[in-house]
Amino acid sequence: MVPRYTRPAMAAIWSLENRYRIWFHIEALACEGMAEYGLIPKEVAHAVREKGERAMATFSETDINRINDIEAETRHDVIAFLTWLAEKIGPESRFVHLGMTSSDILDTSLSVQLVQATDLLLQDLDGVLEALKKRAFEHKETLTIGRSHGIHAEPTSFGLKLAGHYAEFARNRQRLVAARQEIATCAISGAVGTYAHLDPRVEIYVAERLGLKPEMVSTQVIPRDRHAAFFCTLAVIASSIERLATEVRHLQRSEVREVEEFFHPGQKGSSAMPHKRNPVLTENLTGLARLVRSSVIPALENVALWHERDISHSSVERNICPDATIGLDFALVRLSGLIDRLVIYPKQMAANIEKLGGVVHSGEVLLALVNAGLSREEAYRIVQRNAMETWTKLETSEGRSFRENLLADPDIAGRITEEMLEAAMDSRQYLKALDIQYERIFG
Amino acid sequence: MVPRYTRPAMAAIWSLENRYRIWFHIEALACEGMAEYGLIPKEVAHAVREKGERAMATFSETDINRINDIEAETRHDVIAFLTWLAEKIGPESRFVHLGMTSSDILDTSLSVQLVQATDLLLQDLDGVLEALKKRAFEHKETLTIGRSHGIHAEPTSFGLKLAGHYAEFARNRQRLVAARQEIATCAISGAVGTYAHLDPRVEIYVAERLGLKPEMVSTQVIPRDRHAAFFCTLAVIASSIERLATEVRHLQRSEVREVEEFFHPGQKGSSAMPHKRNPVLTENLTGLARLVRSSVIPALENVALWHERDISHSSVERNICPDATIGLDFALVRLSGLIDRLVIYPKQMAANIEKLGGVVHSGEVLLALVNAGLSREEAYRIVQRNAMETWTKLETSEGRSFRENLLADPDIAGRITEEMLEAAMDSRQYLKALDIQYERIFG
Amino acid sequence: MVPRYTRPAMAAIWSLENRYRIWFHIEALACEGMAEYGLIPKEVAHAVREKGERAMATFSETDINRINDIEAETRHDVIAFLTWLAEKIGPESRFVHLGMTSSDILDTSLSVQLVQATDLLLQDLDGVLEALKKRAFEHKETLTIGRSHGIHAEPTSFGLKLAGHYAEFARNRQRLVAARQEIATCAISGAVGTYAHLDPRVEIYVAERLGLKPEMVSTQVIPRDRHAAFFCTLAVIASSIERLATEVRHLQRSEVREVEEFFHPGQKGSSAMPHKRNPVLTENLTGLARLVRSSVIPALENVALWHERDISHSSVERNICPDATIGLDFALVRLSGLIDRLVIYPKQMAANIEKLGGVVHSGEVLLALVNAGLSREEAYRIVQRNAMETWTKLETSEGRSFRENLLADPDIAGRITEEMLEAAMDSRQYLKALDIQYERIFG
Amino acid sequence: MVPRYTRPAMAAIWSLENRYRIWFHIEALACEGMAEYGLIPKEVAHAVREKGERAMATFSETDINRINDIEAETRHDVIAFLTWLAEKIGPESRFVHLGMTSSDILDTSLSVQLVQATDLLLQDLDGVLEALKKRAFEHKETLTIGRSHGIHAEPTSFGLKLAGHYAEFARNRQRLVAARQEIATCAISGAVGTYAHLDPRVEIYVAERLGLKPEMVSTQVIPRDRHAAFFCTLAVIASSIERLATEVRHLQRSEVREVEEFFHPGQKGSSAMPHKRNPVLTENLTGLARLVRSSVIPALENVALWHERDISHSSVERNICPDATIGLDFALVRLSGLIDRLVIYPKQMAANIEKLGGVVHSGEVLLALVNAGLSREEAYRIVQRNAMETWTKLETSEGRSFRENLLADPDIAGRITEEMLEAAMDSRQYLKALDIQYERIFG
Repeated sequence: MVPRYTRPAMAAIWSLENRYRIWFHIEALACEGMAEYGLIPKEVAHAVREKGERAMATFSETDINRINDIEAETRHDVIAFLTWLAEKIGPESRFVHLGMTSSDILDTSLSVQLVQATDLLLQDLDGVLEALKKRAFEHKETLTIGRSHGIHAEPTSFGLKLAGHYAEFARNRQRLVAARQEIATCAISGAVGTYAHLDPRVEIYVAERLGLKPEMVSTQVIPRDRHAAFFCTLAVIASSIERLATEVRHLQRSEVREVEEFFHPGQKGSSAMPHKRNPVLTENLTGLARLVRSSVIPALENVALWHERDISHSSVERNICPDATIGLDFALVRLSGLIDRLVIYPKQMAANIEKLGGVVHSGEVLLALVNAGLSREEAYRIVQRNAMETWTKLETSEGRSFRENLLADPDIAGRITEEMLEAAMDSRQYLKALDIQYERIFG
Repeated sequence: MVPRYTRPAMAAIWSLENRYRIWFHIEALACEGMAEYGLIPKEVAHAVREKGERAMATFSETDINRINDIEAETRHDVIAFLTWLAEKIGPESRFVHLGMTSSDILDTSLSVQLVQATDLLLQDLDGVLEALKKRAFEHKETLTIGRSHGIHAEPTSFGLKLAGHYAEFARNRQRLVAARQEIATCAISGAVGTYAHLDPRVEIYVAERLGLKPEMVSTQVIPRDRHAAFFCTLAVIASSIERLATEVRHLQRSEVREVEEFFHPGQKGSSAMPHKRNPVLTENLTGLARLVRSSVIPALENVALWHERDISHSSVERNICPDATIGLDFALVRLSGLIDRLVIYPKQMAANIEKLGGVVHSGEVLLALVNAGLSREEAYRIVQRNAMETWTKLETSEGRSFRENLLADPDIAGRITEEMLEAAMDSRQYLKALDIQYERIFG
Repeated sequence: MVPRYTRPAMAAIWSLENRYRIWFHIEALACEGMAEYGLIPKEVAHAVREKGERAMATFSETDINRINDIEAETRHDVIAFLTWLAEKIGPESRFVHLGMTSSDILDTSLSVQLVQATDLLLQDLDGVLEALKKRAFEHKETLTIGRSHGIHAEPTSFGLKLAGHYAEFARNRQRLVAARQEIATCAISGAVGTYAHLDPRVEIYVAERLGLKPEMVSTQVIPRDRHAAFFCTLAVIASSIERLATEVRHLQRSEVREVEEFFHPGQKGSSAMPHKRNPVLTENLTGLARLVRSSVIPALENVALWHERDISHSSVERNICPDATIGLDFALVRLSGLIDRLVIYPKQMAANIEKLGGVVHSGEVLLALVNAGLSREEAYRIVQRNAMETWTKLETSEGRSFRENLLADPDIAGRITEEMLEAAMDSRQYLKALDIQYERIFG
Repeated sequence: MVPRYTRPAMAAIWSLENRYRIWFHIEALACEGMAEYGLIPKEVAHAVREKGERAMATFSETDINRINDIEAETRHDVIAFLTWLAEKIGPESRFVHLGMTSSDILDTSLSVQLVQATDLLLQDLDGVLEALKKRAFEHKETLTIGRSHGIHAEPTSFGLKLAGHYAEFARNRQRLVAARQEIATCAISGAVGTYAHLDPRVEIYVAERLGLKPEMVSTQVIPRDRHAAFFCTLAVIASSIERLATEVRHLQRSEVREVEEFFHPGQKGSSAMPHKRNPVLTENLTGLARLVRSSVIPALENVALWHERDISHSSVERNICPDATIGLDFALVRLSGLIDRLVIYPKQMAANIEKLGGVVHSGEVLLALVNAGLSREEAYRIVQRNAMETWTKLETSEGRSFRENLLADPDIAGRITEEMLEAAMDSRQYLKALDIQYERIFG
């Protein structure tokens, strides 16, 4: 992910340094676990931990260069790190990584990084939820037109619109908690997962201290269906972001203008057109959603590794793990800021409801006619006829409102009174279930 | 999905007739719910149920044609169905669909179909789990070579390989149960989800009787993040199928021949080469996995509907809902049959373990040397040198086995005895954790 | 693809019957080619052609059932067909398929079907181009507001908008012609493409008569990079359809109303809201675009077949070949009808241009100030300030037009005259390059 | 793309510095074009060019920081650059960017970068073609077994296998040349593409000097169907890489061992198993193919921008443009080196051909029987029976070779002589069309 869309906290999780720190920690824990079960001397485990901690405390560019040099020869990143570590630890290093395979630390380390990343994303989601909730309550009774197919349907509450997104992001939070469990597993099981040179208790020891669970069967690697499920969840969240971003983009259109992204003093919308105030943040979120989603297919293609493993997943994960989590982190934080500061125009919402001459109440009028004894089909025909008459002449001088047209229709006359029509066209009725809905959503 | 890969039970779920049956049932339930809360007369609800049941009982091609004719005029499928239903029910039809919007029955109906499909898929998964478990126990102690990168690594148990897939499919079962919950929701909330012309209690009434939960906020439609998450789960399962299929394809290679798909008497592998016995079922599963996976992106693209809804998701779902579930159903059933009847060659497995002259025990030899006091790096160099010597001369006359080479190496002489080497090269050691692992997996 | 989105002409191409007809034709041509080069007797080739033609002329359900029965035993579709054909041809059938492999007819037959499908799609594209051209000329001088980010930018011509889509579809036509070449190849090269039991001249003979080119190297199969490239092209076209569909959906929004899909008498937009006229056709096209696009990834995954071939691509292609071409055919025909009958509202377009009080001319005013000697930055600040003032007070009583605000600004006074401002705000200037552009596009 | 898979030449193309250099060059060319047509004074164009060149010549971190500071205020990257440039150029900067819109330089600049990237990729492809050609000729007559479904089919030439990949990469080269044309266009057409404040001749002037063509209709942006088609081509190439990589991975399997990736002295295959020599490069290429392919869907989703443009494509392209081209560049260079140094084992290939006891000649034996007068079906049955007998007893003591079994079969006795059988089982026959094929491919 380009720096433009990268926040430092998430970048730090994917830094080389963090990776090496976790690698060391896993190796040290494994030694401690082995010592615990009498497989290696306790002093060795202490020495590894102490000397290693000291080396990591002063870890610098020099160390990275040294590791790179070793990798240039061995063409194996874990061996390079272990060789560097052995140089720092000395003779006790003989017991480091004993009976383990590279993937034991690679995959367990990836689990730790993904868990760290997920915890950040959960915080981000909380931010989005908080912003949505605040604005949903603020605009609980703000009437706005509901739209299906981009066409005015019936009035609704702007707060309820936001509450719907809140409910969706609450689902996303649950999904992310489940996804976290998917990838929070540990493997210290050796070359092909038989613990041939290892004691399964060591894996449990390490897992517990890392907040992970031992993987059920790791065949050298932790099975990639877990990671695939994880990336699917990120993609669903990204798509929810896109839905909310698309909503804002629509509502900011010049002809609609019901909301606007906060426009900073000094901000310029266009190099050519000084009048522009564009919903660039939500357009950006739309693009980021595409990026995050694009990790799903490679993650799924990574599942069918050959036999006990092949390494084709590695280059994929080196990219999509940081890219998708960094992109999503940035997008969620941008989204919560955006919602928090969204400029909302209730007056314009009210004006838009009236724009179609009242036809948006056709559903309620239909029901009023049915209640007055007409068949559904008959009532539909009458209401549609009057709505179309209103609609097509909307901006011409001879245009009458829906209400006027209805009152003038001989098929209606005598069936419902002007008061009944008035009642059928009262926007407040659309808010009647609001309390129940808010109670359901926000508890 | 083409008929070739379609099983009748799943096809029936997606039949037009099943769809109409569910539509009617929802409308009838809604009437009953309204009657329950005094919104319409109880007799109406009874009449709707009774006359409707009668019409559905004799539902035939004639009815479908009649509905199609109405749709040709109205260009609206739900209105067409309701008009047909009104013709069958008579005057009481006035109360059918009262205050509801088309999506109330379309989306709730889709939920019912998806739940039905999922229940079938869960059965299919149980079949796969059963077959894998049976064969895993049958071959618990069958030694086979574990392979990473397609290269011999260390021996393992063939049963454990299957157990690993069992564990993966057990995870998939859990995921599918969660995915079932995702899409098991009901919406009877009206045009833009405000219950403007409805009572929220009717939705709860209908939902309960359909085994669904009322949707938190349905904005005319049930939000599509749910369906996206559902299809993601199908795609993960499909990828797991691909992994197992790929394993079988590899093991059936002419040079490996450790397993074979059951070959039917009368079956022909090739029109040109009568000797052929090809793993066509697992290749087919590989292709089906690609197809099922291809539903993920459109499902994710369906999430960002405009405002309270647009109908772009509809054409997508008309295809991917049947296609993905039918394809996955077929694949799972094919997979369980395949595993159940898989021809397994333990002798060939044993022979393959020996094929590389014993180098597959290099890891254990490395450890023996480390235990004998060598540094890890030194031991690695010695073992690698002897393994490469063995490997590169494998098929030449001068080729000595790994064991012979090691014994002749002056750097080893005196460090470990022939007995220690023998022990390090005993394949049984790779089975030592099996009981623990089986206990973990199968409980 | 569900019947709802299937046109008969494209369905016929993918019918089982058409497939068998092509299979027979290829086998007969191969016999004729072999006879031509003296490899089999000429009488045999004549007999095969004559008896085969007769069998195909009366081809019916009975034949399909017979073939299915044979396939049920042999589990091989081509062998089943050849066995049926042998029953029809008698002893001469001995020479049919001689030295060939199943893929020789399967892959060549697929090429023929894809070429037939492409020719239909090319016609469809011509229909779209024609409709776009007609409406582009009709509305060449219809002024409309250009929008970037959904925000009013500067006026443009509605015809030019359509002309831009015309140019895009003209590119798509070129791409489809190239894609047709990609898949128009023939393979009659035997089991692994060595012509071991065949004469390469036979392949050339068959290819020529089918309008195909012999495949450079077919390794049993025609390489799948060709098909992948083909499906990519369909996906690009689908995305162009989505772009145009999205444009129409936007322009039909209740607040914009610059165009409307033709609304049939009798059509109903909503079961609940009789007033609705929704852009359902273009929403449908948006969904179909997602479906067509979804064939790209499986087509790409099909490329890396194992060795000389595996059959994993087959199940994929049995679905995506008909699905993607049928879906695209339907979409293109729907699109051309839609454009042809699109209801266009020039008055509403003119009204919308004025909606922002004239700020859409800010770019031209900026240039006028620069020409009057101001620096770009200074001019930008002045124009932006006045545009924002206009914009934010747009719908309030104190709102002045952009022109009024500018004239009242002391920083402008004296720099440009009222006439210069008038000129800068004349919408006609945006049409000045139209003739050049139309000449470029339509030649 | 992570540094691990990034080559400097491609990285340079996507550097911020290269981007700014191109931006300046476009602005300078636009001034020169305007001067050419008398729209601005010639001295201005000279001054812009001269002062700008000077500023770019000493372009450093300081300049980047200054630009970033301006962008932090204006939130617009192009305006930030232009403001910085104005500081460097002084009063003449008034004429820079005159009448242009940001996208004029952004999109034209992206075209230039994509062309530069493509030219590098074309060189890379030439490297792959060269390596494949060299090895194809080297092993033109090296017999190897052809495999379908992973099962031995018939012998073929190893050179021909490589030649088939050569033909595929030659097609990819053609596709990339076409893709280069797709994105080699220029837009200097103003805010919504009407040239309202510009002269179309300036666009032609700039385009010519950049080696681009003027875009037919740019609606503020160059239409994204072009970029989508471009990324599709990269994805097809990536899939071809995967096919070749998969071939090598298969052939290096321990049981097959027909080829090996070059193994560097000092290289370590595994931290746990010193004997390992893994095909890690081709596994890596498999993963990179997944990554490159993952850019296709977002590129296709970028096509349907709203109206004259929205900016959702921008974040997508900031990532996929460098990622996909850098990844593909790295993969192609890795691939050509790999093929060039691939260790090939003809003896092992010869040995593998014999592994199935001669059944790989079943097709030719079938033909010999048909030529001897048997019907195809009868001959098939006999040959299949004997092949299966051979196959199933392959590794048991009682196993006879295919030839022995055939000779002992009473249904064959008297029909074909031992010499005819010998001839039918001669591997050289599979090379008979090689010269024709090489001539076709390499010309």
